[in-house]
Amino acid sequence: MTIQTKPENVTTGPIIGSRRVYSTPPGRPDIAVPFREVALHPSANEPPFWLYDSSGPYTDPQIHIDLNAGAPKPRAPWLARRGFAPVAGRAVRPEDNGFAGEGMLVPPCPAPHDILAGQAQMPVTQYEFARAGIITEEMIYAAHRENLGRAQAADEAKARLADGESFGAAIPEFVTPEFVRAEIAAGRAIIPANINHPEVEPMIIGRNFLVKINANIGNSAVTSSAAEEVEKLVWAIRWGADTVMDLSTGRNIHNIRGWILRNSPVPIGTVPLYQALEKVGGDAAKLNWEVFRDTLIEQAEQGVDYFTIHAGVRLAYVPLTAKRVTGIVSRGGSIMAQWCLSHHRESFLYEHFDEICDIMRAYDVSFSLGDGLRPGSNADANDAAQFAELETLGELTRIAWAKGCQVMIEGPGHVPMHKVKANMDKQLATCGEAPFYTLGPLTTDIAPGYDHITSAIGAAMIGWFGTAMLCYVTPKEHLGLPDRADVKTGVITYKLAAHAADLAKGHPLARLRDDAISRARFEFRWEDQFNLGLDPDTARQFHDETLPKEAHKTAHFCSMCGPKFCSMKISQDIRAQALQADGMREMSETFSKAGGQIYVPAGTGD
Amino acid sequence: MTIQTKPENVTTGPIIGSRRVYSTPPGRPDIAVPFREVALHPSANEPPFWLYDSSGPYTDPQIHIDLNAGAPKPRAPWLARRGFAPVAGRAVRPEDNGFAGEGMLVPPCPAPHDILAGQAQMPVTQYEFARAGIITEEMIYAAHRENLGRAQAADEAKARLADGESFGAAIPEFVTPEFVRAEIAAGRAIIPANINHPEVEPMIIGRNFLVKINANIGNSAVTSSAAEEVEKLVWAIRWGADTVMDLSTGRNIHNIRGWILRNSPVPIGTVPLYQALEKVGGDAAKLNWEVFRDTLIEQAEQGVDYFTIHAGVRLAYVPLTAKRVTGIVSRGGSIMAQWCLSHHRESFLYEHFDEICDIMRAYDVSFSLGDGLRPGSNADANDAAQFAELETLGELTRIAWAKGCQVMIEGPGHVPMHKVKANMDKQLATCGEAPFYTLGPLTTDIAPGYDHITSAIGAAMIGWFGTAMLCYVTPKEHLGLPDRADVKTGVITYKLAAHAADLAKGHPLARLRDDAISRARFEFRWEDQFNLGLDPDTARQFHDETLPKEAHKTAHFCSMCGPKFCSMKISQDIRAQALQADGMREMSETFSKAGGQIYVPAGTGD
Repeated sequence: MTIQTKPENVTTGPIIGSRRVYSTPPGRPDIAVPFREVALHPSANEPPFWLYDSSGPYTDPQIHIDLNAGAPKPRAPWLARRGFAPVAGRAVRPEDNGFAGEGMLVPPCPAPHDILAGQAQMPVTQYEFARAGIITEEMIYAAHRENLGRAQAADEAKARLADGESFGAAIPEFVTPEFVRAEIAAGRAIIPANINHPEVEPMIIGRNFLVKINANIGNSAVTSSAAEEVEKLVWAIRWGADTVMDLSTGRNIHNIRGWILRNSPVPIGTVPLYQALEKVGGDAAKLNWEVFRDTLIEQAEQGVDYFTIHAGVRLAYVPLTAKRVTGIVSRGGSIMAQWCLSHHRESFLYEHFDEICDIMRAYDVSFSLGDGLRPGSNADANDAAQFAELETLGELTRIAWAKGCQVMIEGPGHVPMHKVKANMDKQLATCGEAPFYTLGPLTTDIAPGYDHITSAIGAAMIGWFGTAMLCYVTPKEHLGLPDRADVKTGVITYKLAAHAADLAKGHPLARLRDDAISRARFEFRWEDQFNLGLDPDTARQFHDETLPKEAHKTAHFCSMCGPKFCSMKISQDIRAQALQADGMREMSETFSKAGGQIYVPAGTGD
Repeated sequence: MTIQTKPENVTTGPIIGSRRVYSTPPGRPDIAVPFREVALHPSANEPPFWLYDSSGPYTDPQIHIDLNAGAPKPRAPWLARRGFAPVAGRAVRPEDNGFAGEGMLVPPCPAPHDILAGQAQMPVTQYEFARAGIITEEMIYAAHRENLGRAQAADEAKARLADGESFGAAIPEFVTPEFVRAEIAAGRAIIPANINHPEVEPMIIGRNFLVKINANIGNSAVTSSAAEEVEKLVWAIRWGADTVMDLSTGRNIHNIRGWILRNSPVPIGTVPLYQALEKVGGDAAKLNWEVFRDTLIEQAEQGVDYFTIHAGVRLAYVPLTAKRVTGIVSRGGSIMAQWCLSHHRESFLYEHFDEICDIMRAYDVSFSLGDGLRPGSNADANDAAQFAELETLGELTRIAWAKGCQVMIEGPGHVPMHKVKANMDKQLATCGEAPFYTLGPLTTDIAPGYDHITSAIGAAMIGWFGTAMLCYVTPKEHLGLPDRADVKTGVITYKLAAHAADLAKGHPLARLRDDAISRARFEFRWEDQFNLGLDPDTARQFHDETLPKEAHKTAHFCSMCGPKFCSMKISQDIRAQALQADGMREMSETFSKAGGQIYVPAGTGD
């Protein structure tokens, strides 16, 4: 059986109006950090604009894409120097792929993959390196990335920082590798990067950095090719997903995960419980520590960068959900609740948490401590079950740190606006400032089909308050499997929510992009406006629906108001008139005299 | 020339899964207030759910729709009793329709329309009635509507109210006509209802009521029929627009406005400056008080319910915009700025404000004091120009109240999240709590094509903080004219933002709908989930894309997770198990004993 792996199976080529470029951090010519460069119209008289880029090699026409060979491995030389022992690795078993039989089995990805494991007496995780005072290449890479390749923040940016309200976050004007190290050492940030995932372009998650977003993907019921599954990843990162969770279930998940990991430049997260459940035939009661442990090792060896572990769903909390309007809505949470009830026993994840830490540390798989009891409706928000679990997640965070692991904490869910901040405040207080990673939250339950929007409201707010990564919600939430268009809509929606949060926090670089696009808008540089936006294709298409001609790309109006009523056009004319006068000051004085009752309040500006 | 006015030219028939019903306020059997009733699946064992309904006669199959005859006139008997004098009315002039010639002229709407004008010595406006201690039928109608037809708030609702954070709003548990009167008398609310618009189903705008939304419509470049223009109105109110602004320009606008008004059950707003500009050939410098005054009377006699008046754009403020990134982005604002600069004179709107008040009072046209200097980018938010104008709007509000007029205040625009609340606080302080009516605000500038979402974030927040009405933004903002799909997307997006605001404010009835849909979701009543949502058609379509069969409408899973991983299914099983045990308390004790280390924190619930 051959599978389709030709480049045309995944989306390649630059995002229109831009190209992928690389920049080296100071003193490290061996490290090439990617950015996306948007060239502006000559009339702008501005340098090309650099954007953060998560799209990986797929947008670089210079890189030959071959899914069988896997993506480039920027981390390989760094990892090679750290002395991790190659191990034989666990043998793949029929149940790993859901007993997919001959003809139904997706073959394993042939890209070479040496399996590494850390030892006890050496630093393995980014947390351990950071605590030991060692700056890794991943930290240098992530720092340069956060600065958008700029050497240092401009004076302009300093003023911007002062403009925000950060709620206690301490975003520096310029991110140094040492700052990254210190944040990781403090547990306030993580770089999810399994030592078996050398393909990762390192990125950092923490509230003193740019707000990140995650996209979920999963296999289709009928998998026609591995490339089709890799394409879901490629499509999500093309539009800006910083990490991707593979929530596949059923047949072929081991092999598909291999294809995804070998071709992923972004950290990949999974919920190992899903595969463990498959291995016991889908019966939660049959789950046990041995099959779960085996699954952790299987996935860690493949290179998964973070695991959602629902160890906070304790037996005693399950009854707290009985009177909820929507019970338990986390898949992992409901599986563990069922296990606890079936056996009338404490969760095996909670009881074996030390051992889970030991396994995850050996590969530097980061924890994403799952919120199995998150609310599934506004009615259930911030209730006893949710916050009881959060207390336990705080307890587990400290254990994981003591074991050398990186940790982030998952959060809700469905929360009305007035209860959003309490979630952030409580998470910060309970979990020692470990990064918060929330699903939305959705601020109302009444808009099925539009939950990317109900949740973008909550996501922007909680991101502002301090959440480090936002898990996207697509328009299909509650209704069905997202298709390609839904994934893009979800990613773009969350990019704008994350950016709104960065702006409000006062991130020193965030407003540069808003200002660049606003200047383009005011100067009728239509192409620049499209290309600086989150989705140039859609912006261009919307514009061209009514004004398709090339000449309209420089027209001083659009079809919304037409030429006669275009306020920007009139406003430009006003400015031109003003400049023709002898300087604005004199003109202002003239106006003041002419105006009679002049009232210009002091101190109302910002 | 005949125009198409057959019913099939506008969208009629109930929204799927619901029907339009009517309810009479206590003691007033002559008043019929409309609601939308959603019948639930018998298994729900719940009464039909009532929703606020703005859709007018078009969703009532019992009402014969004839655009030539106009919509029903619920206000006609009330107005008849108030003794307003019929007047001859201003004669229509060729320039009113942009000199549309033979063959290009849309004929006037033949629906009968007697023109009324109030006199000096009698109460005319809702504000004047309210100040005189008189409760009008409009107030009774609006009160019953706000209560969703319920006789009084349930005990459950009282608890809900306590749950919100209202930032000083005082939403009562039950809205009485006297409460409506008092709010209008205080200037905190308005009922936009021109005495020449008897077709209006009265609604109230104020921060102690449900948050409302406005949709903008405008004529196409080539108007093929009046019905086509009326359909834009019908389509917007079908999905929930509480008011509609007609921003048409160019030819035929007088006659098209007539068609819209005679067929509109919602208040219609306009910007008379646009038509005045047309009358002087599009040259802002040629505008003058006489042509503007004439236009006010023309539109007031037709029945326009509120006018945007940009009287706050004063000569002295124009230079404050010179260094902005995006100058002046309000059409009306830029027109007035150009007029002021051309003549080096104070705004004629400001100088003639008393006379404007006298005209608007005579017909009870409400003021929507325009924010001509609102920011067009995050960079320009909350600047000196914007806040200088806001101070003037406060000054004008007091003048308009003294003249007996109803007033609301328009607000921004483009504002990053951390600067949103300052807008609300300043508006409340400056404008005497007159209702705030904002456009978004957009919380970032970088997402052309998605500005319904960037602005929904700001709209939900500012609605929570106290804004009474949110003007929608469509996906085409900044790019072109919205089409039918864009209008629906904009309306639904703003309905969800307004509802999120109601929830967060603690509106006593808001969460009833969230809870109803959440129960439906948890109980796999798919049809109920669709029908209780803002857009049943889209929700159903999304669901059916992957599970089209009728049997799946009661299936205990959807295609998102499938049957094996459906957390709601598992959670229901858990609940069933729990109920089989001897009551939850005993079960809880059992869990506690089995669990060993029990930790259930006190006081973490809400």
